[in-house]
Amino acid sequence: MTRNGNHRILLSEDRIPKAWYNIAADSPVAFPPVLHPGTGKPIGPDDLAPLFPMSLIAQEVSTEPWIEIPEPVREVYRLWRPTPLYRALRLEEALDTPAHIYYKYEGVSPPGSHKPNTAVAQAFFNKAEGVKRITTETGAGQWGSALSFGCNLFGIECKVYMVKISYLQKPYRRSMMNAWGATVVPSPSPETRAGRSILAQDPDSPGSLGIAISEAVEVAATHEDTKYSLGSVLNHVLLHQTIIGLEALEQMEIAGEYPDVVVGCVGGGSNFAGLAYPFLREKFINGRNTRFLAVEPAACPTLTRGPYAYDFGDTAKLTPLVKMYTLGHMFVPAGIHAGGLRYHGMAPSISAFYHAGYIEAVAYRQLQVFEAALQFASAEGIIVAPESAHAVRAVIDEALAAKEAGEKRVILFNLSGHGHFDMGAYDAYLSGALENYEHPQEKIEESLKHLPRVE
Amino acid sequence: MTRNGNHRILLSEDRIPKAWYNIAADSPVAFPPVLHPGTGKPIGPDDLAPLFPMSLIAQEVSTEPWIEIPEPVREVYRLWRPTPLYRALRLEEALDTPAHIYYKYEGVSPPGSHKPNTAVAQAFFNKAEGVKRITTETGAGQWGSALSFGCNLFGIECKVYMVKISYLQKPYRRSMMNAWGATVVPSPSPETRAGRSILAQDPDSPGSLGIAISEAVEVAATHEDTKYSLGSVLNHVLLHQTIIGLEALEQMEIAGEYPDVVVGCVGGGSNFAGLAYPFLREKFINGRNTRFLAVEPAACPTLTRGPYAYDFGDTAKLTPLVKMYTLGHMFVPAGIHAGGLRYHGMAPSISAFYHAGYIEAVAYRQLQVFEAALQFASAEGIIVAPESAHAVRAVIDEALAAKEAGEKRVILFNLSGHGHFDMGAYDAYLSGALENYEHPQEKIEESLKHLPRVE
Repeated sequence: MTRNGNHRILLSEDRIPKAWYNIAADSPVAFPPVLHPGTGKPIGPDDLAPLFPMSLIAQEVSTEPWIEIPEPVREVYRLWRPTPLYRALRLEEALDTPAHIYYKYEGVSPPGSHKPNTAVAQAFFNKAEGVKRITTETGAGQWGSALSFGCNLFGIECKVYMVKISYLQKPYRRSMMNAWGATVVPSPSPETRAGRSILAQDPDSPGSLGIAISEAVEVAATHEDTKYSLGSVLNHVLLHQTIIGLEALEQMEIAGEYPDVVVGCVGGGSNFAGLAYPFLREKFINGRNTRFLAVEPAACPTLTRGPYAYDFGDTAKLTPLVKMYTLGHMFVPAGIHAGGLRYHGMAPSISAFYHAGYIEAVAYRQLQVFEAALQFASAEGIIVAPESAHAVRAVIDEALAAKEAGEKRVILFNLSGHGHFDMGAYDAYLSGALENYEHPQEKIEESLKHLPRVE
Repeated sequence: MTRNGNHRILLSEDRIPKAWYNIAADSPVAFPPVLHPGTGKPIGPDDLAPLFPMSLIAQEVSTEPWIEIPEPVREVYRLWRPTPLYRALRLEEALDTPAHIYYKYEGVSPPGSHKPNTAVAQAFFNKAEGVKRITTETGAGQWGSALSFGCNLFGIECKVYMVKISYLQKPYRRSMMNAWGATVVPSPSPETRAGRSILAQDPDSPGSLGIAISEAVEVAATHEDTKYSLGSVLNHVLLHQTIIGLEALEQMEIAGEYPDVVVGCVGGGSNFAGLAYPFLREKFINGRNTRFLAVEPAACPTLTRGPYAYDFGDTAKLTPLVKMYTLGHMFVPAGIHAGGLRYHGMAPSISAFYHAGYIEAVAYRQLQVFEAALQFASAEGIIVAPESAHAVRAVIDEALAAKEAGEKRVILFNLSGHGHFDMGAYDAYLSGALENYEHPQEKIEESLKHLPRVE
């Protein structure tokens, strides 16, 4: 190596932040209200009470800038936090770029992604209000395993409705949830009204995230001791993820640099917001000049090709209406391998910032994405999750653009998880079996016809 | 948590040791010579030259106490080293034990185990002597992926002969090797004389580690630009692993404690020796009073039920004769899930120390082992490799014995790797399909009849 500097910037445990950062306090743009689908009127905390504990609802609507992290949550965070910030010296060398590339590595958590940052917090707040059981849905299984992990540590039951096709094809994420004591049910299941109604129409239904959400929500809404948990999109979820960016701010200071561009992949938006919001605060409050780049798959191009409109969060129209970039709640993405990026909508706050021009977005196809993932694995060693590989692709392109322009550019990105449970996707890429899919415009237009009429 | 203290003791990059520790320099017992199988005479460096570069052969026979770690190797180590030392506060709490439990976590390396500590070093020394290609064998794939990773970083070709049944049943370890650019061949293959001879007898042979070794060795021996690499057993391999114990010594000092007992699982012995030897040095040189406990599976009980005798390192009798604890080179272990612990022999130095009473050993059956692994996952979050789970079982028993005796006991163990590629084994345990196998005495006696006659 001809470059100097540290590979990893580590923080000791006492540097785990004591509060999460709430961007609602400092946002120069207003977040449009969430609407009740029946009345069309803004919803209040009581509308959410059947599904979430009051402390999380309070965080969801809070405008306080800092929300204290309870000590038992920090105590669990200490199992893997603070996470390391890496300087990608070998990747810089391989690209022969003047850019400095940094990444925050969230794959060191036991479930292998950033998801436990909020799973642990949600388990704690539910436990504190006497909740006995939490239901959730999972597709590829990253969120389900994070919540299983969190619930196990706080002694709370966890029931995961896992999309049936994933349940059958990806048994190892399921085994991981079982190892942490969770119950995993293939969805659609005969246990719920929603599941039974689907099975009556199609006994061989492979399931979908929309159906799994309906099952998990139904069980929570109909059981006194049970609440529901979501792994992205909502304000309180993004709030919990800001611990990533808060640590990164301090680590960049130790590195003696400040990012010119902050990059993350987006599905619902939680890992991107988690890294970006503390730096966006610096922009809002101190006028620091940083670009923010959200990266999505061309197979599910929510920000780059969807409208900014009120829509449902789920296919079955059980959720309130939120204003967001959306491909329509009836949108069915192709079976791309980055399961965590297949959501039709986008977190409302990210949508608002994108609409106001504070955030940029770019979409990539799969072959470009896996090519970048292999380049990263070769240089830095880490085999990244297909979701995170989208960010890697954008970072490499930023670094090459900096080289082209002959300018130093400090790039920071969120490496949200490892790919140990996604090797089938790498296999498909290496064997040439991966499709270079881009969602066709006519299908998006068809899906957008089902947007609800609001205003 | 009612206990105080840090979960993790981290070291900064500049604390990566500058030299490996060579126990041969301080051993109070002599290591018996390695013998040429034809002549029965001790072998010299020249006998090994077709297979290994001279620098590694020099390390193999060195009696110098410290072998300098080349800067480019330390540079690669910085991608994941120093590894964290954890205090297992939650496990202590769950066991309600006065024992203090520490573990060195080697699963943070990109390939997920301690294996790259030597793979990276071996790749470097081979590259330095102009070697173009390295061959090796792999069973479950942990060693093969570590060597693929190491070779990729130093721009050297890697060819892995993978036991065919594993190649077919564990495609994800293979994908990982491919992602790092290695060629993976199912063994027996038609590429070698050894492979062809097996296929002629049995076209459907599932392969074995012994056959795969024969193939890898044959290719290295018959190609000028190709050398062979082994992932355990040999002195220079154990030497490279001492970086684990050297870091742990410093971390225990920061913790303000010293281990009463050091624990590790043993297959060929490299992860155990890597942690234990720097502490064994303290016993030899400074008389510090520590117990050393090697943990093996009851399905492959080399130390606890084998004799201390000269034997071949492989089934095909291609290797020199080494004095070691052995179940016989014809020993075929049952298909237990801890693939890394299925070796019939044991590192000669560990054998010598065990024979002289410096090391203790214990054997466990699988059900006890997986019960401990789940208890650990529940308390500490990490899902451990089945190999490492053997150490966890022994540690829990030590901690319970300390509770029984009402004494504080400081326990340190090597958590050699994560179990992300072993979830099938957890699945089998959770579904009740795992056999509680112990190798029958008459089969061991049968296998021992084939020991070579020496002396």
